[in-house]
Amino acid sequence: MPRINPERVLSDLRTLATFGAYKTGVHRPTLSDQDIAAREWFAGRMREAGLDAEIDGVANILGRSRASGKKVLSGSHLESQNHAGWLDGPLGCVYALEAARAIAEDPATADLGVDVVVFCDEEGHFGSFLGSRSIVGLLEEREIDAAAGKSGGMTMREGLTKAGWNGRPRHLIDPARYAAFFEAHIEQGDKLESSGCKIGVVTAIVAIWQYCVTVSGEQNHAGTTSMQRRRDAGREMIRLLAAVDTRFQGVAGERSVWTVGRIDFEPGEKSIIPGRAQALFQLRDADTAVLARMDEALRAEIVNANRTGRCEIVVEQLSASTPALMDEGLQAALDAAAEATAPGGHMRMPSGAGHDAQWLARKLPAAMMFVPSIGGISHHWTENTSDEDIVIGAQVFADAIVAALRRS
Amino acid sequence: MPRINPERVLSDLRTLATFGAYKTGVHRPTLSDQDIAAREWFAGRMREAGLDAEIDGVANILGRSRASGKKVLSGSHLESQNHAGWLDGPLGCVYALEAARAIAEDPATADLGVDVVVFCDEEGHFGSFLGSRSIVGLLEEREIDAAAGKSGGMTMREGLTKAGWNGRPRHLIDPARYAAFFEAHIEQGDKLESSGCKIGVVTAIVAIWQYCVTVSGEQNHAGTTSMQRRRDAGREMIRLLAAVDTRFQGVAGERSVWTVGRIDFEPGEKSIIPGRAQALFQLRDADTAVLARMDEALRAEIVNANRTGRCEIVVEQLSASTPALMDEGLQAALDAAAEATAPGGHMRMPSGAGHDAQWLARKLPAAMMFVPSIGGISHHWTENTSDEDIVIGAQVFADAIVAALRRS
Repeated sequence: MPRINPERVLSDLRTLATFGAYKTGVHRPTLSDQDIAAREWFAGRMREAGLDAEIDGVANILGRSRASGKKVLSGSHLESQNHAGWLDGPLGCVYALEAARAIAEDPATADLGVDVVVFCDEEGHFGSFLGSRSIVGLLEEREIDAAAGKSGGMTMREGLTKAGWNGRPRHLIDPARYAAFFEAHIEQGDKLESSGCKIGVVTAIVAIWQYCVTVSGEQNHAGTTSMQRRRDAGREMIRLLAAVDTRFQGVAGERSVWTVGRIDFEPGEKSIIPGRAQALFQLRDADTAVLARMDEALRAEIVNANRTGRCEIVVEQLSASTPALMDEGLQAALDAAAEATAPGGHMRMPSGAGHDAQWLARKLPAAMMFVPSIGGISHHWTENTSDEDIVIGAQVFADAIVAALRRS
Repeated sequence: MPRINPERVLSDLRTLATFGAYKTGVHRPTLSDQDIAAREWFAGRMREAGLDAEIDGVANILGRSRASGKKVLSGSHLESQNHAGWLDGPLGCVYALEAARAIAEDPATADLGVDVVVFCDEEGHFGSFLGSRSIVGLLEEREIDAAAGKSGGMTMREGLTKAGWNGRPRHLIDPARYAAFFEAHIEQGDKLESSGCKIGVVTAIVAIWQYCVTVSGEQNHAGTTSMQRRRDAGREMIRLLAAVDTRFQGVAGERSVWTVGRIDFEPGEKSIIPGRAQALFQLRDADTAVLARMDEALRAEIVNANRTGRCEIVVEQLSASTPALMDEGLQAALDAAAEATAPGGHMRMPSGAGHDAQWLARKLPAAMMFVPSIGGISHHWTENTSDEDIVIGAQVFADAIVAALRRS
């Protein structure tokens, strides 16, 4: 079996961390100068590895292997969240590249091919999974036309033009070319660390159901309007959310999560009873049956509040994705590879975060592998994984890819 | 007893409503061109009534009677909230002026004197009760220097300069000159209307206690952070506020009100667990013992949440005013005057809103009288009171002032 080169893996990751370095992390938004430079550098590293690498019209990079036979497609993203970590994205790109290199360098596996891919904008600076949706044929040109920077600044077209990539054809994968898609990522949670595990084998990428809850009451004077008379939209929202939270504890699954990320009272003044309150509500679970129970509980509490309260509450479901199930055979390949390098140090787990793999899973058997996040921290510049764990992960990842290729 | 002139009262109010007319209400912020013009016009009406009227360096207007003996001081404010009603403020100014006129016109009362006052900025476009605090000697010049427009735009100094009043000496009342202060106002609630009453005799202006509650948790990924591990500042805030609301129902007084006017989650994104949540909390009651019980309940719930929860909660008391008690003898004078004009159609009640009278009450025996608000609406351009109720109120107000002057 091929041996990955630990120094090469760590060196590539450290070089990538210099593009937009921020404290011990990176600030490298999609199509920023630093992101463009990182993509150019990484395409060069792909070519040095013997891959035919091209950056396309949505800033995806595809490095094609010249090996014959079915290939594995593998990769992740290079841009970062604002002022975030050095591994979120780059780890999966470097693991894919290292797997391609190690497999090509070992005479016993040199006939096997790994295509390496870098998706654009997984972090959503311009849109929602623009790169991975593009490569599976689920992104129209007009969506790129409309993509404005979420925190202001340039549009996606302006960024692509600056990079010199605007108008290039976009890569589209041919499912017949591939045996599987593999993505590696930091866990972004602390389950591996707290269990003493080195490898997480992802069973499914959770579905996300999102809601906007709006309570309409009556804006009025906070001094002269008695408690009996007022129709306080803020008070009703607080009661509703507290009731929903309590009810969820009875119906949620073991790994369900729910979050009120934002709440707004209008007009938001200390001496005015809010006439309107709005909250963004999000549920995640890998099991749609669990999500359906939570959805039902949310709606039941709203019906109840509308019956007993003095405001009008409406709920709008903003999105309802389906869980992306990872391929069973590929999970078994990851289990076996992990057992070989880290005996007993692996576990299966869902991914609570979205990843490019969820889009690739629509076209190819897909697999995801996690390595531990120190302290479970992610989307922050203090995000980290020990060098030892990075190296273990790279070896397990390459071994699992070989197994998938051998099986095909 | 003097008879007020109904046509003159309604005509003056309707003329004032032309300065900054907005739909059926007015938009006349402090020191806007419309407010300046309204003040100049009103000062002219004072002079026509034989009062020595001067606008001072904080835009207060004081119209002094030339009668001998103790006077009554009476008035309210002329500026409006943004896009608000035509009566909030002007009613009390016109009632005061009409009382001065009617009393001067009746030979039986012509020896009695009423000084009419118009306070500046009761509505707080620049500060907190700047006009009434100035006239009782509780406003320093530097506070005017620092007064910036709350919704941007000019500073108070710029407004005063535009009007030609900047640098003028400021009126200060001599308590020895006055037997009492009287202010009339629309109720801004629906107690009078729902009780079929024409006159509210104010017992006290409630105290306002304000708090800022801050919950500190840990900002994290809304998908990868388990419910067990997360320290969700937003969730903890919702639980706390719901618990406080429930607890208040046991300790609050009959007329206590409490309001969460504003709530903010940081960073306020749908997929990020809020790391920080902040809420503005306000209590009002005329009884400090009740407020103290509510304060204690709020703090007890926070102690409890800090003990049982996973976030850190701190509360800062932003302000804690004392209730302004209205003079008992003047309340009796208002009761008697109301009984004469509207037999059985009057009631005593606290004022849930703040008024200039709360500052005058620090120096003089003070009285406040309410007339009904149609539908209890205030701070909105649909605010209104029937002509009949306006006329009844004007007569009762003048009669009570005569009684107070006769008693002195």
